Amino acid sequence: MSGPDYGATFGAWRAACPHWAAYTRHAFVEGLKDGTLPRAAFLHYLVQDYVFLVHFSRAWSLAVVKSETLDEMKVCAGTVDALVNHEMALHVETCAGEGLTEDQLFGAVEEVENLAYTRFVMDAGVQGDFLDMMAALAPCVMGYGEIGARLAGSGGPYSAWIETYAGEEYQDVCRAVGVMIDTSVARRVGDLGVSPRVVALQSRFDMATRLEVGFWDMGMRGA
Amino acid sequence: MSGPDYGATFGAWRAACPHWAAYTRHAFVEGLKDGTLPRAAFLHYLVQDYVFLVHFSRAWSLAVVKSETLDEMKVCAGTVDALVNHEMALHVETCAGEGLTEDQLFGAVEEVENLAYTRFVMDAGVQGDFLDMMAALAPCVMGYGEIGARLAGSGGPYSAWIETYAGEEYQDVCRAVGVMIDTSVARRVGDLGVSPRVVALQSRFDMATRLEVGFWDMGMRGA
Amino acid sequence: MSGPDYGATFGAWRAACPHWAAYTRHAFVEGLKDGTLPRAAFLHYLVQDYVFLVHFSRAWSLAVVKSETLDEMKVCAGTVDALVNHEMALHVETCAGEGLTEDQLFGAVEEVENLAYTRFVMDAGVQGDFLDMMAALAPCVMGYGEIGARLAGSGGPYSAWIETYAGEEYQDVCRAVGVMIDTSVARRVGDLGVSPRVVALQSRFDMATRLEVGFWDMGMRGA
Amino acid sequence: MSGPDYGATFGAWRAACPHWAAYTRHAFVEGLKDGTLPRAAFLHYLVQDYVFLVHFSRAWSLAVVKSETLDEMKVCAGTVDALVNHEMALHVETCAGEGLTEDQLFGAVEEVENLAYTRFVMDAGVQGDFLDMMAALAPCVMGYGEIGARLAGSGGPYSAWIETYAGEEYQDVCRAVGVMIDTSVARRVGDLGVSPRVVALQSRFDMATRLEVGFWDMGMRGA
Repeated sequence: MSGPDYGATFGAWRAACPHWAAYTRHAFVEGLKDGTLPRAAFLHYLVQDYVFLVHFSRAWSLAVVKSETLDEMKVCAGTVDALVNHEMALHVETCAGEGLTEDQLFGAVEEVENLAYTRFVMDAGVQGDFLDMMAALAPCVMGYGEIGARLAGSGGPYSAWIETYAGEEYQDVCRAVGVMIDTSVARRVGDLGVSPRVVALQSRFDMATRLEVGFWDMGMRGA
Repeated sequence: MSGPDYGATFGAWRAACPHWAAYTRHAFVEGLKDGTLPRAAFLHYLVQDYVFLVHFSRAWSLAVVKSETLDEMKVCAGTVDALVNHEMALHVETCAGEGLTEDQLFGAVEEVENLAYTRFVMDAGVQGDFLDMMAALAPCVMGYGEIGARLAGSGGPYSAWIETYAGEEYQDVCRAVGVMIDTSVARRVGDLGVSPRVVALQSRFDMATRLEVGFWDMGMRGA
Repeated sequence: MSGPDYGATFGAWRAACPHWAAYTRHAFVEGLKDGTLPRAAFLHYLVQDYVFLVHFSRAWSLAVVKSETLDEMKVCAGTVDALVNHEMALHVETCAGEGLTEDQLFGAVEEVENLAYTRFVMDAGVQGDFLDMMAALAPCVMGYGEIGARLAGSGGPYSAWIETYAGEEYQDVCRAVGVMIDTSVARRVGDLGVSPRVVALQSRFDMATRLEVGFWDMGMRGA
Repeated sequence: MSGPDYGATFGAWRAACPHWAAYTRHAFVEGLKDGTLPRAAFLHYLVQDYVFLVHFSRAWSLAVVKSETLDEMKVCAGTVDALVNHEMALHVETCAGEGLTEDQLFGAVEEVENLAYTRFVMDAGVQGDFLDMMAALAPCVMGYGEIGARLAGSGGPYSAWIETYAGEEYQDVCRAVGVMIDTSVARRVGDLGVSPRVVALQSRFDMATRLEVGFWDMGMRGA
């Protein structure tokens, strides 16, 4: 199982993660691909994902707070802008077509799987440093990029969703984040493979991936 | 349904919380009372609760960081000490009798219901102020106090657990925290009942209580 | 002494602050106005102000983390973007004309007056809530707006600096932040004048203003 | 110039720090040793140091939040307890003899050198990980230990202050913190001397030491 090239560090984390296939090949994803995912499940997911993006934007903002180089600041601040002004706007537009306002989205009650995930990422930043956050943020950013790239051109009822993540703009974000992570690893750790930090960072990456699996499960469960 | 007097603010939060009975009268609690709770469920809970206490101690330490008066600092620092040096020690002792070491407890993989709860409390402190934390911390502290007080003297296989929370030492903590919360509300808000903050604080209290219900559910599910 | 209208809350904080005139009518400011400020003092200030903006951007990013409404998130994220991609860029451009690279700016050793200010603002966010941060962030944002508006059209060697803060783009930021603060006060506190919080918020505003005075003093001292 | 053995990591940081002698052999320290320090300077220092300890306790509490092992949690929580319940109490007692109440101490207006230092330490924790905090916390803890050990038995008007830091209890804290730092370095970094992190950590240690020099300067300046 291979995927797009989002940098060496991400590649190593992905290869060592026991939950990666369960996440990126989840029944929810396959249902998006062949169009068999029930609309109610998709909408339930979309409302929860909007609230997810609110807290994910807060998490990327915490990554700006934790940045130690100008490049880290700029990439993370740019990601916050992309999340708040583009990805969240896409959800708002799709949900508007279903009669849901942005205030309804913002005020939706979080499912526990949703809350667990974003607060885990936030706490990775509170407890650790910039790289601890990156290990917890990467599965969502890059996993969606990988899923988008694999599902590109599938067509069907979910093609707008698919093409958002398959598109060059989103793929560029994944590559830029990947380069930045590699640079941060070089600056802070050197060769991650021989550093004792490899265990803790892999553990954060694995937990975030496990929480992605739970998020799809929650989506499947429907409203 | 009445409970011990842990202060006016807690009393108002408790009275307005739709999940309070589901939490404090949960089947898990009734099983502790009459001794019918399966031992495996109790041990699964205890291991998870040890990890919970690790992060709950981190959360009370964040409350020290957020303190604005000497009294707040002292009460919160004292609670950290009680958690790290007494309550966690009790779990270690009980688990040692089952052949589990403290390192095994510390390294146990968190269930999602557990992780969701403690990280939610941490984030209440990251996002809000001292009172936002208190609203998220109170359900655990005072709920266990109320459960302990109600189950006191039940005897049976779980009497050691019950008497820990029924005991004067723990009840004193609940009362001290309750007084401190009332003082903090007076200092920051004045009359909470007529303040717009009442909504946001109740919302944090309610979510933490909902997460307590999930924690018991997780315990019932067993290993 | 009157100034532009940046909202009711800011107006009340400004009116009650004992250091406001010392800050906005500082000798450094008058020297910018009539062009008598020594070039070395201006450059020393500019290098320190670049480092200030790095940490001030981190502080506004923490304000995104602490936001509780969509509007707060958007205004704060927009301010981070304005700081990182516009105001810092202006400093880089001006300093480039003096032979200083952005890496040299980013790596400049902070003066204690500089460090004290930005870390105080960060800690206001760590200790308090969104409004505690706003009270600590407002003196810089709005004070520069007020100074820019008063010095507009002064001409002389510092006219580029003056017109940046006098310009509509910057004045719009001040007004938008002012409206957002008023909304946040209404949402969290109600009538701030009769709330016990007024003391703590004024205290944060006053300290930040005092630290602005120290920042100009540091600038006057030169390299 | 040698000092007590507080572990290998501290030893390396101390040896590489250009401000260490300026801090530990400052005129303020020599005045404590031979008793020539003016009483007003000492009292001014003591009041500011009380406020310093308030925020230093908050910083050590943040270190509990950032702990990743049980040992780190216990050492840091124990340090918070020592600061809040012992070192601050000593200041209260000494100041009481001069007619100052603890409320007056808690409410004293911070000098900028004081504020700069504690907020810098806090932000080291917000921006970095546990080790970033330790590098910023170590100069105060261990520097006072080294000064106490060197001045032990000097007698004179400041002997109570001297013997507090010379005493076994305080020296034990320094050694315990030193061991914990060495363990944390081994766990996270391995050989710090060949890690790229050595630069950033030394930089935090150096800045904190520079801020200690400023703190003594502020003390000498008197009220």
